[in-house]
Amino acid sequence: MAVIRVVTSNPGKWFEISQILREEGIECGWVQTSLSEIQAYDLREVVSFSADEAYGRIGGGLLLEDSGLFVEALGGFPGPYSSYVYKTIGIAGLLKLLEGRDDRDAFFLSVVCLVTEAGEKILEEGRVDGYITYSPRGSGGFGFDPIFSPKEADGKTFAEMTPSEKNSLSHRGRAVRRLAVKIKEGY
Amino acid sequence: MAVIRVVTSNPGKWFEISQILREEGIECGWVQTSLSEIQAYDLREVVSFSADEAYGRIGGGLLLEDSGLFVEALGGFPGPYSSYVYKTIGIAGLLKLLEGRDDRDAFFLSVVCLVTEAGEKILEEGRVDGYITYSPRGSGGFGFDPIFSPKEADGKTFAEMTPSEKNSLSHRGRAVRRLAVKIKEGY
Repeated sequence: MAVIRVVTSNPGKWFEISQILREEGIECGWVQTSLSEIQAYDLREVVSFSADEAYGRIGGGLLLEDSGLFVEALGGFPGPYSSYVYKTIGIAGLLKLLEGRDDRDAFFLSVVCLVTEAGEKILEEGRVDGYITYSPRGSGGFGFDPIFSPKEADGKTFAEMTPSEKNSLSHRGRAVRRLAVKIKEGY
Repeated sequence: MAVIRVVTSNPGKWFEISQILREEGIECGWVQTSLSEIQAYDLREVVSFSADEAYGRIGGGLLLEDSGLFVEALGGFPGPYSSYVYKTIGIAGLLKLLEGRDDRDAFFLSVVCLVTEAGEKILEEGRVDGYITYSPRGSGGFGFDPIFSPKEADGKTFAEMTPSEKNSLSHRGRAVRRLAVKIKEGY
């Protein structure tokens, strides 16, 4: 099995994905670059579009990932635009939107895509349900991690977990482990 | 001069753009379809990308437009994602984000693109500065119009104006009129 090249501009993603792949016995390297992303409600479309661009630019044997935080009381906002929303209104903005509300259910969704040497795309998803906390806690992870607590985590936010703990529960961990099964089976 | 085909899925945009073009003596028709949009901070990139797709699908003689509301206190949010943000957190969400704040400066930006028969792209911009009101007013226009008041409008929101009044002041009106000059000059 060839080395999988993980394509992302985000060091936090590379850190998490490479740790999971290594635990699965899969060798990987980092291609730190930005890809075009399409505006779409469906993360699978977003990733699939970026995958085509990446394949055209740098060939096969690639892994890409995109994820979003979907807050139910906000109609799924920020969803596929989580990164932009994080950079503009941030955690404070998201908490403000939920001020005075107790319906704080949310989920993180991750879609990973392996682009084979032949240009075939294999997609897998991972989802984790939880809720938005009333204030930020913890300094681990990245993005909205300080205000997201998975249902199974007994109140802890993603940012209060060790990297391994987060990977064991997270949307990204689930998606990448599903993909790892296929990689190890030879797709 | 051939009939310009205006490509948009949004009836409100078609209504405004066609009125402006007609006032400029330019004939136009409506192609009501959705185009892929890229995730980018720069509206020119977004429009240019959609223009390439449109040209590939339906040929030249096209006009496309994209616009966004940029709120300064929110780091430019919702910007190029205004339509998604409108559909999710909406006007109530945007007002909530500005609750208790008096720095309410904002601007609307419009980028229009003419794709010629030969596939050449001609871009023009229009911008209008104003502020976000404390509550929605009026029922005209679309999107965030009920909470945006241009500086020149003496407190009126876009949604409180007649279509002609809005077109005379608006980002979209300015951009389309600039493009109309080039169309009438033969590009």
